[in-house]
Amino acid sequence: MTDIEQIAAASRRLEGVSVRTPLFGNAALDDAAGGSVLIKPECLQVTGSFKIRGAYNLMSQLGRREAKNGVVAWSSGNHAQGVAAAGSLLGIPTSIVMPEDAPRAKLDNTRRLGGEVITYDRYTGDREAIAHELAARRGAALVPSFDHPQIIAGQGTVGLEIATDAVAMQRVPDQVLIPCGGGGLSSGSAVALKSRLPDVEVFVVEPADFDDTARSFAAGERVRVDGSARSICDALQTAMPGKLTFPIIQALVSGVLTVSDTEVRAAMRFAFRHLKLVVEPGGAVALAAILSGKLDTAGKTTVVVLSGGNVDVELFDEIQTEPN
Amino acid sequence: MTDIEQIAAASRRLEGVSVRTPLFGNAALDDAAGGSVLIKPECLQVTGSFKIRGAYNLMSQLGRREAKNGVVAWSSGNHAQGVAAAGSLLGIPTSIVMPEDAPRAKLDNTRRLGGEVITYDRYTGDREAIAHELAARRGAALVPSFDHPQIIAGQGTVGLEIATDAVAMQRVPDQVLIPCGGGGLSSGSAVALKSRLPDVEVFVVEPADFDDTARSFAAGERVRVDGSARSICDALQTAMPGKLTFPIIQALVSGVLTVSDTEVRAAMRFAFRHLKLVVEPGGAVALAAILSGKLDTAGKTTVVVLSGGNVDVELFDEIQTEPN
Repeated sequence: MTDIEQIAAASRRLEGVSVRTPLFGNAALDDAAGGSVLIKPECLQVTGSFKIRGAYNLMSQLGRREAKNGVVAWSSGNHAQGVAAAGSLLGIPTSIVMPEDAPRAKLDNTRRLGGEVITYDRYTGDREAIAHELAARRGAALVPSFDHPQIIAGQGTVGLEIATDAVAMQRVPDQVLIPCGGGGLSSGSAVALKSRLPDVEVFVVEPADFDDTARSFAAGERVRVDGSARSICDALQTAMPGKLTFPIIQALVSGVLTVSDTEVRAAMRFAFRHLKLVVEPGGAVALAAILSGKLDTAGKTTVVVLSGGNVDVELFDEIQTEPN
Repeated sequence: MTDIEQIAAASRRLEGVSVRTPLFGNAALDDAAGGSVLIKPECLQVTGSFKIRGAYNLMSQLGRREAKNGVVAWSSGNHAQGVAAAGSLLGIPTSIVMPEDAPRAKLDNTRRLGGEVITYDRYTGDREAIAHELAARRGAALVPSFDHPQIIAGQGTVGLEIATDAVAMQRVPDQVLIPCGGGGLSSGSAVALKSRLPDVEVFVVEPADFDDTARSFAAGERVRVDGSARSICDALQTAMPGKLTFPIIQALVSGVLTVSDTEVRAAMRFAFRHLKLVVEPGGAVALAAILSGKLDTAGKTTVVVLSGGNVDVELFDEIQTEPN
């Protein structure tokens, strides 16, 4: 199981590579929550999401022999950009299997960062099979998007930074809310947070139509949901939590919350109007949970992770001009 | 003349009131600049712009007698929100004279923050006369938007934070670019920056149609420009630099740059796509100067101040969906 030492080591590897994103408050959000809220904006991260942390942490530890034929990954878009950016920094060729209907910005940026993009149909194709076949054919290493100790450790640096900065600001949180797809960010961050701040409660947040972690958490074992559901949260469409991530979530997390697409859209409007941050749908689920009253924030100090900001301008505009 | 001690005192007064906005880099911006760029995002500040700093610094020093009849200000919208927010924190009633065509978000937020809004016609009315008459009638104090030592000192905390944080990050800048309307932010920040980092060069940036500071700088004396020009930069439509701000700019600033509305619009798109920040037109002029090559950034470390993010969603969407 990933521990705090691995996360601290990842943090050292990421120095000068990832942005040490800030932690700050917002008066309008405090008002809405009836308490104190600190924002951890990973939309400001290199590639617009936290994913560079795990990808670079894993890929920087590949031996020369492992890396010489490049790496292969599959991703809806944020991990793709993280892998491409890490490959570009490390001189490792990268190929990423992505859904053909991924946000255009994610497809374009992955290519711009030097990644080879191979598209497939999200609703009929099997991206894992395509990636495995490609990796085997090329003798390339696979870079999983969440279920790997070094990916979990890399994403866990988000939690480590939150703990360090909150203590430095003398604003130790009562609870931390983290968006959850496969669980890499939430499991790694939970390890760091509970290690540094044992009394903090960690909650993870999913789209209601991809509530695999909520169902698994309730069942006490990994449960698969219908992967063909549609959600605006393209980054969080995972059908089952990871083999490695789920036991960590089970052990350390206080609860799993879910939010509807409508609640996510309202959160993206709040982020534009009051936070002045561009947040993508999947990146806004934890904020949506606060704004729609999914947990008690009154009188508490709550940290909310905004995990990414890679949203196409057309969808963004559509959401922003909707009535609230 | 405002000095570093006044700015340091303002910084202490603002503790727990203003957000100590972060200073961070962005890979796409580094690529565009061919150098290292650090962003100081005052769009993340309370009320969405730096203006709370000066307003609170001045208003918190008013005696009980001075404050008892409230304060009056005039503003295109950001100072209005700063004054209203400071008044709400300090228990001082606030009335602000604003153009009737100010961005709706600025009008709404000023009211939401507890300010009384009095509108006038930007192109025919005289806001200063309206404000002075109102203040005289009520026995209220005036809170100028830039030309006051305590306003300059408050806005100067932006420069102080940049200097402190850049040194802590071991990334001392070669140059700092600051948006300039009346010159409160730029003069105050220049004092702090040149005091802490004597070798740094400070540049201020204006809309090309409101280039009063550029013309004054060239002429060696304050010059008035046609105040009826139209610019997308509603926050920077000042016809003449201040009596107090201009001599500071003249003494400490290395140059005055101007940008077109087209360059500003492109900068706002860059901020959405790569920085994931919502920046208003006037807040984007310094970024526009970098992206349009108005000064040499190659191989240098440049700090860019994004001074505000209060833009109406309709204009934002119009700009974002334009071809680049």
